[in-house]
Amino acid sequence: MSNLQLAGRKSLTLFSGRAFPELAEEIAGHLGGTVMPMTARDFANGEIFVRPEESVRGSDAFVIQSHTTPINKWVMETLILVDALKRASAKRITVVAPFYPYSRQDKKHRGREPISARLMADLLKTAGADRIMSIDLHTAQIQGFFDGPVDHLFAMPLLAAYVAKTYAGEEITVVSPDTGRVRAAEQWADRIGGAPIAFIHKSRDLNVANHVVAKRVVGDVAGRLCILADDMIDTGDSIVKAADLLYEAGASDVIIAATHGIFSEPAAERLKNSRAREVIITNTLPIRPEQQFDKLTVISIAPMIARAIREVFEDGSVTSLFDGRS
Amino acid sequence: MSNLQLAGRKSLTLFSGRAFPELAEEIAGHLGGTVMPMTARDFANGEIFVRPEESVRGSDAFVIQSHTTPINKWVMETLILVDALKRASAKRITVVAPFYPYSRQDKKHRGREPISARLMADLLKTAGADRIMSIDLHTAQIQGFFDGPVDHLFAMPLLAAYVAKTYAGEEITVVSPDTGRVRAAEQWADRIGGAPIAFIHKSRDLNVANHVVAKRVVGDVAGRLCILADDMIDTGDSIVKAADLLYEAGASDVIIAATHGIFSEPAAERLKNSRAREVIITNTLPIRPEQQFDKLTVISIAPMIARAIREVFEDGSVTSLFDGRS
Amino acid sequence: MSNLQLAGRKSLTLFSGRAFPELAEEIAGHLGGTVMPMTARDFANGEIFVRPEESVRGSDAFVIQSHTTPINKWVMETLILVDALKRASAKRITVVAPFYPYSRQDKKHRGREPISARLMADLLKTAGADRIMSIDLHTAQIQGFFDGPVDHLFAMPLLAAYVAKTYAGEEITVVSPDTGRVRAAEQWADRIGGAPIAFIHKSRDLNVANHVVAKRVVGDVAGRLCILADDMIDTGDSIVKAADLLYEAGASDVIIAATHGIFSEPAAERLKNSRAREVIITNTLPIRPEQQFDKLTVISIAPMIARAIREVFEDGSVTSLFDGRS
Amino acid sequence: MSNLQLAGRKSLTLFSGRAFPELAEEIAGHLGGTVMPMTARDFANGEIFVRPEESVRGSDAFVIQSHTTPINKWVMETLILVDALKRASAKRITVVAPFYPYSRQDKKHRGREPISARLMADLLKTAGADRIMSIDLHTAQIQGFFDGPVDHLFAMPLLAAYVAKTYAGEEITVVSPDTGRVRAAEQWADRIGGAPIAFIHKSRDLNVANHVVAKRVVGDVAGRLCILADDMIDTGDSIVKAADLLYEAGASDVIIAATHGIFSEPAAERLKNSRAREVIITNTLPIRPEQQFDKLTVISIAPMIARAIREVFEDGSVTSLFDGRS
Amino acid sequence: MSNLQLAGRKSLTLFSGRAFPELAEEIAGHLGGTVMPMTARDFANGEIFVRPEESVRGSDAFVIQSHTTPINKWVMETLILVDALKRASAKRITVVAPFYPYSRQDKKHRGREPISARLMADLLKTAGADRIMSIDLHTAQIQGFFDGPVDHLFAMPLLAAYVAKTYAGEEITVVSPDTGRVRAAEQWADRIGGAPIAFIHKSRDLNVANHVVAKRVVGDVAGRLCILADDMIDTGDSIVKAADLLYEAGASDVIIAATHGIFSEPAAERLKNSRAREVIITNTLPIRPEQQFDKLTVISIAPMIARAIREVFEDGSVTSLFDGRS
Amino acid sequence: MSNLQLAGRKSLTLFSGRAFPELAEEIAGHLGGTVMPMTARDFANGEIFVRPEESVRGSDAFVIQSHTTPINKWVMETLILVDALKRASAKRITVVAPFYPYSRQDKKHRGREPISARLMADLLKTAGADRIMSIDLHTAQIQGFFDGPVDHLFAMPLLAAYVAKTYAGEEITVVSPDTGRVRAAEQWADRIGGAPIAFIHKSRDLNVANHVVAKRVVGDVAGRLCILADDMIDTGDSIVKAADLLYEAGASDVIIAATHGIFSEPAAERLKNSRAREVIITNTLPIRPEQQFDKLTVISIAPMIARAIREVFEDGSVTSLFDGRS
Repeated sequence: MSNLQLAGRKSLTLFSGRAFPELAEEIAGHLGGTVMPMTARDFANGEIFVRPEESVRGSDAFVIQSHTTPINKWVMETLILVDALKRASAKRITVVAPFYPYSRQDKKHRGREPISARLMADLLKTAGADRIMSIDLHTAQIQGFFDGPVDHLFAMPLLAAYVAKTYAGEEITVVSPDTGRVRAAEQWADRIGGAPIAFIHKSRDLNVANHVVAKRVVGDVAGRLCILADDMIDTGDSIVKAADLLYEAGASDVIIAATHGIFSEPAAERLKNSRAREVIITNTLPIRPEQQFDKLTVISIAPMIARAIREVFEDGSVTSLFDGRS
Repeated sequence: MSNLQLAGRKSLTLFSGRAFPELAEEIAGHLGGTVMPMTARDFANGEIFVRPEESVRGSDAFVIQSHTTPINKWVMETLILVDALKRASAKRITVVAPFYPYSRQDKKHRGREPISARLMADLLKTAGADRIMSIDLHTAQIQGFFDGPVDHLFAMPLLAAYVAKTYAGEEITVVSPDTGRVRAAEQWADRIGGAPIAFIHKSRDLNVANHVVAKRVVGDVAGRLCILADDMIDTGDSIVKAADLLYEAGASDVIIAATHGIFSEPAAERLKNSRAREVIITNTLPIRPEQQFDKLTVISIAPMIARAIREVFEDGSVTSLFDGRS
Repeated sequence: MSNLQLAGRKSLTLFSGRAFPELAEEIAGHLGGTVMPMTARDFANGEIFVRPEESVRGSDAFVIQSHTTPINKWVMETLILVDALKRASAKRITVVAPFYPYSRQDKKHRGREPISARLMADLLKTAGADRIMSIDLHTAQIQGFFDGPVDHLFAMPLLAAYVAKTYAGEEITVVSPDTGRVRAAEQWADRIGGAPIAFIHKSRDLNVANHVVAKRVVGDVAGRLCILADDMIDTGDSIVKAADLLYEAGASDVIIAATHGIFSEPAAERLKNSRAREVIITNTLPIRPEQQFDKLTVISIAPMIARAIREVFEDGSVTSLFDGRS
Repeated sequence: MSNLQLAGRKSLTLFSGRAFPELAEEIAGHLGGTVMPMTARDFANGEIFVRPEESVRGSDAFVIQSHTTPINKWVMETLILVDALKRASAKRITVVAPFYPYSRQDKKHRGREPISARLMADLLKTAGADRIMSIDLHTAQIQGFFDGPVDHLFAMPLLAAYVAKTYAGEEITVVSPDTGRVRAAEQWADRIGGAPIAFIHKSRDLNVANHVVAKRVVGDVAGRLCILADDMIDTGDSIVKAADLLYEAGASDVIIAATHGIFSEPAAERLKNSRAREVIITNTLPIRPEQQFDKLTVISIAPMIARAIREVFEDGSVTSLFDGRS
Repeated sequence: MSNLQLAGRKSLTLFSGRAFPELAEEIAGHLGGTVMPMTARDFANGEIFVRPEESVRGSDAFVIQSHTTPINKWVMETLILVDALKRASAKRITVVAPFYPYSRQDKKHRGREPISARLMADLLKTAGADRIMSIDLHTAQIQGFFDGPVDHLFAMPLLAAYVAKTYAGEEITVVSPDTGRVRAAEQWADRIGGAPIAFIHKSRDLNVANHVVAKRVVGDVAGRLCILADDMIDTGDSIVKAADLLYEAGASDVIIAATHGIFSEPAAERLKNSRAREVIITNTLPIRPEQQFDKLTVISIAPMIARAIREVFEDGSVTSLFDGRS
Repeated sequence: MSNLQLAGRKSLTLFSGRAFPELAEEIAGHLGGTVMPMTARDFANGEIFVRPEESVRGSDAFVIQSHTTPINKWVMETLILVDALKRASAKRITVVAPFYPYSRQDKKHRGREPISARLMADLLKTAGADRIMSIDLHTAQIQGFFDGPVDHLFAMPLLAAYVAKTYAGEEITVVSPDTGRVRAAEQWADRIGGAPIAFIHKSRDLNVANHVVAKRVVGDVAGRLCILADDMIDTGDSIVKAADLLYEAGASDVIIAATHGIFSEPAAERLKNSRAREVIITNTLPIRPEQQFDKLTVISIAPMIARAIREVFEDGSVTSLFDGRS
C-alpha cells in the first residue's frame, strides 16, 4: 500500500493538572506555547473527571502537576489524566512532577511499612506514563523505582548560586539539619566555593521509639553565617528548631534554603517568626498569598523545566544542563 | 532437607481502612474475630502512612474500605495498605470495596475521556491485590476490568425482599429513573413477584450538549405505588425529580431504593424534604448522624460480606449465596 | 555515529484476514491503496499459516478481519497474523474488528462463567496488537477491556439517518426488543428527531432458570411505525418474535434495524418471512448471496472505517467524525 | 484475627474440553475419580460458552483437551475454560494438551512468518494457565516457549517397548522419514537395544521454492525390517511415500510408528492401503471409528497422564517416570 | 472429583550456589537440615550448568549465594538456578543474597549511567524469584527496587554489640568515612549507648571531575577511640586512608568495622599493615585463608540468616528479630 | 500547543561491548560511521560500569557484543549497557549478539534443568532490549524465546560458497558430526549443488548415563572429500574425533566448517594437530593471535551484519538478504 505515506512529524503538547496551573503556564511561556485546554472537574462525591478539549493523537505529551495538598487528589488527577492521554493515542507521555509525591516513604523504616515512593512509580507506569521528570528527589534512588527514563533535574545549584552571590564575602558554614543529608551539605559547600560543613546530631534512646534524648551541633558554626540546607520544608518545625540550635551554638546568622516549600500549616507563620535572616525556596509547589512573608525568597524553576522539556522533545541532552549530572 | 516440614495452615486476617471502620468491625463480629490493629495517619501534607501492628506473613488478608468522600484519599489509602501487605508477605490479598470507586466512569462517553473504573482495577492489581469483592457494581462489565477473580455480591435482593414484605398487597410498579437501568428494574420486578415496570424517557437536543428538552414517564404508574430503583444516590437531585415526575403522573406513592447511599451534599436534605414515602439504602458507605432522617431505612450488608469472606477463605461457593448468580 | 541519519517517514499498510476480504478491499479503495498481498492457508488439520509477501518493517499496520462464523478460526487467524507482523517489525499494529468477537460474554451472568470479551482483548494484546478499532460494541465498557487505545466507531447514526430520510413524515416509535437496550433506543429517538420510545418487558419465574412467563410492550406503539432497533441480529428468533408482538400490540408497521448482521441459520429465512416491512443492517459482517432477500437493506461501513483509519494514521481526530463522541 | 484458622487442604479437579472427552474419562478412571460436570455449548455463530457446574475455588485444576480438528475451536475452548477457572478462583491451573497445537510452526522458516507455537504458549499464559503438560513435543525447545513449568511426557518409550516385544528377533533398522528427526531415530534405536539407523535424504533445487529433485535412503535397509518413526502422522502422504521408498530400497518390511495420529483426510485410507505391515500410534488424539483399520494399533497414554497428574498433585517427581528425563 | 484430596504440607529446601558453600552448610546446620545436592559445573566456554538432584516440586526453596568475585559469574549462576527451580515447580523461591550485587550502582550519579542495583532486582524477578533476603543493603531504598517482599536483615547490631562489649569503658567516637553514611554512624552511636559522632569532609573542585582538594575531620576525635564504621570494605584504600586521617587528628586508636568484607586485592595486605587496632567484619562474603590476618575478627551471620529463614518458612515475624525494624 | 513542532528524524548509534571491539569497528566501517565512545570498566570486585559519553536520546541504538569467554561477564555487560541506554531514552535498542549465549541449553534434556537460552531472552527483554539480531542460532526455535522481533542471519551460505569455490570439482560428501544436525548437512548439500550427506551414529547404553558404546558412519564417505559441518566448535574434541572416524571410514580428506569458533582450550591445538585439511569459521567470536594456525580460514561476517543493521534502520528487508529466509 505504498501510496499512503507521510513525512514524520513531532508535536509537543503541554497539559496541566489543577494543582498549580500558574507553573504550567509559566513553563509554556518559556517554550513559546500554551497549555492544552482541558475540562477538569470534581463530581459531587469527589471523583475527578478530565478531558482534553483537542485531539492529542500522536503527540509528545508532558503532564505538569505540582503534588501539593490535598496530595492524594492531585496524584489521582495525574493518573486519570495520563489514562485519558494513553487511551486518546498520545505517542509518549512524560509526567513532570517537580515534587515527587510520597518521596519520604522511600524505604521500610520498620517491618510492614509500605514503600509508597515505589508504589507511586508503579501507579504512574500502570496508568500509562512512559517517562518521569522531577526535581531534587528526596533520595536519588527513587530514579530506580521507575521502570523507564527519569529526568532528574537539580534546583540546588540555583539556590547555591543565589546564596553565593547574595552573601559573597561572608564566613559561611553549610549545615545539614540531620545526619541523613550531610552529603547534600557537602555538595552545597562545593557549589559555593569550599565552605566548611556541619550537622546536628540527635541521640536516641533505643528503648523508647523515636525518643531523642539530646541534640548537638557537630562542626564549626560559632560566629559564622549558617546555611541550613534541606530538600523540603513541610511544617517547618524541625528546620526552625535547627536554626535556634545554631544561634545557641553561636551562629552569627542563619539562612534557610530548600527546594520544595510544602509549607503545611503552620510553616509560614513559624518561618516568618523565626530568627532566620532569609528563607529561600523554589516554586516546585505553589505558595499561596497568605503564605508569603517578607524574608521569603522564591526562585522560579520554570525556566529550567522548560529547557529540560525542550531537550527531551528535541532529543537533546538534559545531562548537559547540569555539567554532566543527570 | 526433609527434616523441615510443616502442616499447611490458613489464617484469615481482616484489615480496615479509616473511611468506615464501623463496617469492618461489624463484619469481624459476624466472623467471630477482630480487625487487625494498625497504625494509620496523615502526614502534614496529606501523605498517608499505614503499618499493621502484627505480623501478616502468610495470611489470607481482606482489606475492607468504603470509598466515601474524600474518595481519592481513601483509594490511595487502600493502595498503600495493599502495598504494605504485599511487601510484608501476606499470602493473598482481597480488596473488599463495597462501593467500587469511579464506577460511573466505566467507558468513554466521548473521545479523549479516561476509563477510570478500569484504571482503578489496574491500580489495585499493581499495588498487589489478588482479588476484589464488591457489591452491586454500576455495570457488571466492571468485573472484566480486573485481571483476576472478582466476587460480585448482590444487595438488590435484600432491598427487594424488604420492599416485598413491607409493601405486601400494594399495587406496585418498579420504575427506572432513566433508560440505562430498565434491565435492573426488570430484575426488581421479578424479585418482588411480577410487578409491571416503567421508566423515564428524556429527549435531548443533539445540537446542544446534554440538553434535555422533555421528560416523560413510559409505562403504567397512575394510582400505583412506584418503587424508584437505582444503584446509587449521589446528590439526590435526579432521583427526587424523578419522584416528583411520578407523582405528577399520578403515582399513589413513591419509594426510593438504592444500594449505595453516597449522599453528597445536599442529598439528605433533599430526600428528607421530598414527597417520597420511604428511602431505603444499605450501609456500603457510611451515613453520618446528620445525614439520618426519619423516613430513611438502612439495611446492613455486613452479614452478607461476612458470609462471602468466609466462603472465599474456606474455598466454598460465593455463587451459592445468590441462587447461582456469581 | 552522526553520519547515519534519516528523515522520519510513515507508511500505512492494510492487511486482510480471509473472513471477508471484500470489505478490506472496499476500505483500501476508499483510501486509494491496495491490501498487502499475503499467503494464508489452512494445513490439513486446520492449523492456519499466514505470511505477508512484502516487507512490513516500520509500517503502520491495520489488520482488518470480520469475525463471522467459523468465528474461532477467524479469531485465531487474526492473532497469528498479528504475531507475524510483530515479529516482522511492524511499527504499530491496529486490529480493525468491525464486529468484536464474543462481545455478548462481557460479564459473568452467573458464577464460574468466563468473561470472554475481556479474554479476547487480552489475547489480542498478547499477540502484539497496539490498538483496536471496532464498531457499535455490544456494551461500551468493552473499550475498557483493552489495555490501550480503542477507536470506537458508531454505525447507528448511519442507520438512523437512513430511517429518518426513508420514513420521513411517519409517526415513529423506537422500540427496544428488551430492557437492556432502552438507552440505545433513546439515542435512536434523539437521532431521528424526538420520537417516543417503548420496550418489551419479559417477566421471569425466578424458580425456573430462564423461564419467561409473560411478555408485554411498555410504551405507545398502537398505530405507529415501530423501529425495532438492536445492535446485532444472530438467528433472528427474538427480533422476529418482538416484531410479531408489536403487530399484536397494534403497530402499523415494523422496521428492523441493527448494525451487525450475524445471520446464523435460519436468520435470513426468518427475516424474509417475517411481517417486518424492511430489515436494515451494515456490512460489518459478510452477507452471503443466499442470505440476501428483497426487503434487506445493507449500508456499507467501509467509508467510515476508511476515514477513521486515515485519521489514526495522520494523527487526526476520530472523535470529530462523530460530533464529539469517541 | 487468630480465631479464624484452617488446616490446609489440596483438592484435585479434572476438566475436559469437548474434543475428546473419552480420554479425560479414562484418565479420571485411572485416578479413581470423575471429570467435573460442565456446561459447554456453541452459540449460533460459533462462539463457545463453558461453565463448571460446581465450585472450583481453591482447587488444583487440570484441563484436558485434545487439540484435534477443528483445532482452532478447541484451542479457543481451552482458553475460555481456563479464563473461567481463573475468575472462579481455582488455585492452580494445568493445561494437559497431549498434542501441542501449532507445534510445527515453532520457528520462522522464512522471514515474516509467525511463530505460532510460541503464540500458543503466550495465549495459554494470558488466559491463566500456570502450567502445561504435553506429550512428545514436536521439538523439545517448545518447553522454553512457556513462561512456567512444563511437564514433558514421553510416549516414544511405550511405542519402542511394544515394537521391541512384538518384533523381537527381527533384523531392525530404525528410519527417520527426513533429516530433521534422525536424533529421534537414534533414541529409538537405543530403546530397542542397539539397531542401526537410516534416513531419507531429499535434495532440493534452491532456485525453486520447496522443489525436491531427488530422494534417497541413506543407511542400511536392504533385507531389514524398517521402523519408520515419526512424531505425528497428519495426512499420511509423506510417511506412506517414505515406506514405498524403503520397500524400493529393499526393506523386508516396514512398520510405521508415531505418537500423534492426527489422521487428516485421507490418512486412514492411505495407511490402510499402504504396504506397511503395521501402523502404531497412541490416543493423544481421538481416532474416529471410520478411521480404524485392521493393521492399526493404538496404545493408550491415559495411564501415563494419570500417573503424571498424580505426581504433580502430590508434589512427587514426574522426571522419575522417565528414568531421569523430564 | 472429591475423592482426590490431600492435607497441605510445607517443605523447606535449601540450595547453595558455588560461591561460598560453607555459609549455606553452616545455615543448614543451624536449621537442623542439609543443603540439597546439586550438579553444578562450567562448560568449556564458561557457560554454567546446574541441576538439583532431587525433586523440588512444591517446596519452599531458599537459594543462598554469596556474590563474591567473579561476581558476574555468581549472579548468573543464581539466575540460572532460580530458572531451573521455577521450571521444576518449586512453590516459592527466595534468593538469599547476604551481599546484594551491584548495590553501589543504586542511582545515576551522572546522566546516562545504568541503575544496576535495580536491574539486578528485575533480573531476579524475571528468572523467577518471589522474594529476596539480604543483609545491610548499601542503601535501604534498594528494598524498593524489587517488586515483592524483601527481608532486610541487619548485621550492624551484631557488630555494635561486639564493639560495645570488647571496648567497654573506652571513650568512643563513631566516625563515618564520608558524608554519605553519617546517619549510619548515628545509629551505631545509639547502639553502643550514646557516643558522639564525626565524619570526614572532602572538598571537591567542581571544575575537575572527582577532584578532592581537601579532607578534614568534622567532630571530636582527639584522644578518643574511633570506630570507623562502613557497610563494606572493598580494596580498603579509602578506609585505611580514613584511619590515617583520624590518627593524624589525634585519635587514640581506630577500629574498623563493616558488614561486608569484599576484600578485593590488596585489601587484606592494606588492612594488615594499617595502624588500625582491629578490623571487624561478618562472613556475608567468603574470606579466603590468605586473606586472614591477626587483627581481623569475623562474626558469623549464619545464625541470623537461619533464624530469618525459619521465620519466613513458618510465617513468623522477621521484624521481631530486630526490635521492630524490618 | 501547535507552535512546537519538529520534523521526524532517525539517528543510528552503534555501541560495542568490550568483548570484541574490533568487530564493532569493522561493522561501523562498513556503515561509514564510528562506534559511540563509552566509559566501561570493572570495579575491584568485578562489578561492571558503563556510560556512553554522548547523548543517546531518541537514537536507534545497536549494541554489538560477542559473547566469548568469560561469557557471564560479557552477558552482564550487555544487560547493564542496555539498562543504561533505556534509562538514557534511546528510542529503540537492538542487541546484536552474533553468537547467542547459552544457546545449547535450549531445552530440558532431563527434568529439573534450566532452559538458559530462554532465560537469556527474558533477561535481555527485562533490561530493555526491543530486538535481537543473531547469526546461525544453535536451533532456530530460539527465535521464539524472545518476545519481539529477532533478525536471524545466516552465515552458512558464506561458508558453503567458500567451500563450493575452493573445492570445486572434488567429490564432496557433507557430514553431520551427530544425528542432531543432519538437517543442517542437508541444507549445506543443497547449497553446494547437490552433494550426498552422511552422519555419525552413536549407540548408547541406556543403563549408563551418557555412555556411548559404538560410533559408526552412516552414508557414503569412502574416497570422498568430507565437509564436516557444525554450527560451533568449542573444545574441538568431538569434531576432531569425528574427522578421525571419517578418515578411518576411507574419506579422502576432511574439511571442518563451523560458524562459531568458540575455541575453548585446547581447541586451537587440537585442530592444528588434526588430520583435517582446512578449518573454516567466521569471526562471530574473537580469535586471539595464539589461536591462529596455518590451515585456519576466518571469514568475516561484519559486512553481513552491517547490511542487516542498515536494513533494520532504514525499514528495508533483512529477509531479502537471504533469498527469502528470515
